Amino acid sequence: MDHLKPSSANSSPLTPLGFLERAATVYGDCTSIVYNSTTYTWSQTHRRCLQLASALTSLGIKRGHVVSVVAPNVPAMYELHFAVPMSGAILNSINTRLDARTISILLRHSESKLVFVDYLSRSLVLEAISFFPPNIQAPLLVFIADYDEEEAKAAVDPDRTYEGLLKTGDPGFKWIRPETEWDPMVLNYTSGTTSAPKGVVHCHRGLFIVTVDSLNEWTVQKQPIYLWTLPMFHANGWSYPWGMAAVGGTNICLRKFDAATIYAAIRRHGVTHMCGAPVVLNMLANAPDARPLKQPVQILTAGAPPPAAVLFRTESLGFIVSHGYGLTETAGLVVACAWKRQWNRLPERSGRDVQVHE
Amino acid sequence: MDHLKPSSANSSPLTPLGFLERAATVYGDCTSIVYNSTTYTWSQTHRRCLQLASALTSLGIKRGHVVSVVAPNVPAMYELHFAVPMSGAILNSINTRLDARTISILLRHSESKLVFVDYLSRSLVLEAISFFPPNIQAPLLVFIADYDEEEAKAAVDPDRTYEGLLKTGDPGFKWIRPETEWDPMVLNYTSGTTSAPKGVVHCHRGLFIVTVDSLNEWTVQKQPIYLWTLPMFHANGWSYPWGMAAVGGTNICLRKFDAATIYAAIRRHGVTHMCGAPVVLNMLANAPDARPLKQPVQILTAGAPPPAAVLFRTESLGFIVSHGYGLTETAGLVVACAWKRQWNRLPERSGRDVQVHE
Repeated sequence: MDHLKPSSANSSPLTPLGFLERAATVYGDCTSIVYNSTTYTWSQTHRRCLQLASALTSLGIKRGHVVSVVAPNVPAMYELHFAVPMSGAILNSINTRLDARTISILLRHSESKLVFVDYLSRSLVLEAISFFPPNIQAPLLVFIADYDEEEAKAAVDPDRTYEGLLKTGDPGFKWIRPETEWDPMVLNYTSGTTSAPKGVVHCHRGLFIVTVDSLNEWTVQKQPIYLWTLPMFHANGWSYPWGMAAVGGTNICLRKFDAATIYAAIRRHGVTHMCGAPVVLNMLANAPDARPLKQPVQILTAGAPPPAAVLFRTESLGFIVSHGYGLTETAGLVVACAWKRQWNRLPERSGRDVQVHE
Repeated sequence: MDHLKPSSANSSPLTPLGFLERAATVYGDCTSIVYNSTTYTWSQTHRRCLQLASALTSLGIKRGHVVSVVAPNVPAMYELHFAVPMSGAILNSINTRLDARTISILLRHSESKLVFVDYLSRSLVLEAISFFPPNIQAPLLVFIADYDEEEAKAAVDPDRTYEGLLKTGDPGFKWIRPETEWDPMVLNYTSGTTSAPKGVVHCHRGLFIVTVDSLNEWTVQKQPIYLWTLPMFHANGWSYPWGMAAVGGTNICLRKFDAATIYAAIRRHGVTHMCGAPVVLNMLANAPDARPLKQPVQILTAGAPPPAAVLFRTESLGFIVSHGYGLTETAGLVVACAWKRQWNRLPERSGRDVQVHE
C-alpha cells in the first residue's frame, strides 16, 4: 500500500546534542557539573556551550573542521563534547598520556585547526607543535586554565584561555545542526595496539544510539550523581558525557584521583554512578582505609574481567559492579554482561575459593 | 575533510524486531510470557514468532500487506507484535471495544488481508465483515483460541486457529527485514475523538526510537516482571511489547482483570512494572481488600493526571507512580513528568489537604 509509506523527508537528524537543550529546559535549575568549588546548573552549561560554539565560529571554525583537546576531566572537557560539534566542527579528544611525537602526528593527520590544551599539558603540546614541518600551518592553541589552582593563573596568557574565549561568545547563538545524521561529530584515535594509531570517525546518529543504549544497558535512573574517573578522552567516556545530559545527571569532575579522592567524593557528593577500568576497582578494593559505603554505588568496568577476589572485595564494600566491553571503533560499550536474576541465588565466592583453570 | 565523512551505505535499519533475536540469545532460557498455566521462554517466543511469520508468508502475505488483530492481552497478541512485521506485513491492532460498523470501516480502509480474531470477538468481527459491500474481498480470518478455557475449544474451527496456523510454519524462517528503516511496521487508528478514526503509520525507525526512549524514561531495569493491564491495542502498549524483549522481561498476560486479579498477579509473579490509565490507579487505590505491597511496583500512567487523593493512596500502598502523555500519532509516550530529586523533600499531601484552583 503506497499510501502507508512513511516519509523521511521531514525527520530530524538523530544527535546526542539535543540532550543538552532538553536538560536546560527540564533540569535547568539542577546541578550539571561540580569541580572543586565550581558548580554549574544545566541552564548555565547550555549557555556556556552555546557561547563557546559561537566563539569558535568567530575564530573561523567551520562545519567539518577538526578541533582537538588535550585535557583531563575538567569542566571544559565536558563542555567541549557539546560545544565543538555545536559549532559544526568535529571533536578530537587526545589521550593526555601520549608523547609529544605521537600527539604531533595526530594533530597533523587530523588537520586540526585549533587545540584546547590543559595548562598542565602546555609544554607537551608545544613540543608536539615543534615537530611540525615548516610548511605545515600549526593549529591555534587555547589554554584551559584551572582557576581553582593558583599556578594556573600564572601559566597561561589570559587572552588565549578557554574562559577568555568563551566570554566572547553569544549565548543566543543558533548552533550549527548537522545536515544529516551521518555527519561526522567526533574523531578518536585508537591507542595503536596493533600498529600506528588509527582514526575513527563517529557520526551524530551513531553517538545518539550508543548513548541511549548505554543508558538502558546500565539502567541509569534520572539525576544520577556521576563521578568522572574514566577519562573522557577514552572513547568519549563511553558516551556518558552525552548520557548525563539525557538523564539530567550531575557530573563530578576530578583532575586526578586516587582511592582517597574517590572515597571522599562519594561521601561528599552522594555519588551513585562511576565508570572505571579494572585497575580502578583494584585501587578501591585495596585502599587501606576502605570502609563500607553508606549507599551503594554502581560501578561500570570494561575490558578484561577483574579478578574474582577484586570483584568480591569491591562488592563487599557496597559497589555494584557491571561489566562491559567496547573499543574506540564502537564509540562505547557494545557488549555487556547481562546479569540474570537466577545468578543471585548462586553462592558468593571470594578469590581464595575460586578455582581458575588456565 | 572529505575523508571524515561516515558512510550510511552499510548501516542496518533501526528496528525493534532485533530485540527479539537478542532476547533469544541472551535470555533464551528465561521466561518471556506467563498466561494462566502457559509459560514460554524467550527462545520459544522467538521460535514461535518465526514460525508464525513463515506461516503468514505461506498464506500469501507479502511485504506491505496489512494484517489486523482484534484480541485482548493474550500471548498471541504479544507474539503478533513481532511475527506480523517479521513477515514483512504491517500490524494493525484494533480496539476490541469498537462496534462492528467501525471495525468494518477500519478493515476496509486498511485493506487488511487477514485478521486474527480472539474467540470472544468472533461474532463482532463476523458482523463487521457482513457490512462489506459484495464487491470487496473479505479478509481471511484466523481465530485465537484460548486453550486454558474449555469453551474456546468448541468455539472455533481447529484448522483456522492461531495455534494450527503457527504449527505449519518453519522455525528456521529467514524473516523479512525492512528494506529501509522508514518502511511501515504498524498501522494504528486513533479513537476518533475529533472525527472519524484516522490511520497512523509508524515505521521501524520510529518504533525503535520510542521503544528505547520509553525504557530510558521509565528506567526499566533488566528482567522486569511486567503485568499487562494496558491493552496492547492501545498505541501498541506504549511500545513495551518490544521494550520487554529489549530488557529480557517477563510478560504477565491477562485476558481481563479487576483489582483482585491484579493484586493476585502481583503477589504470585512478583510483578515489578505495570502501565495503566488513571482509572486503573483508581481501581487499585479503592479496592476494599487493598493491602500494602510486599515489594514496590512501578506503575506508569498517562493522560490526565490522577486526582491527588488517588495518587496518595496508590503510593501509600507501595506503588511508585510515574506519569506521561502520548497519543496514537506519537507511537507511545513522548511527554513525561521528569521527577526532580528535590521534590522528595516536599511534604506529602493527601487529597484532603490539597487546594485545587480551578
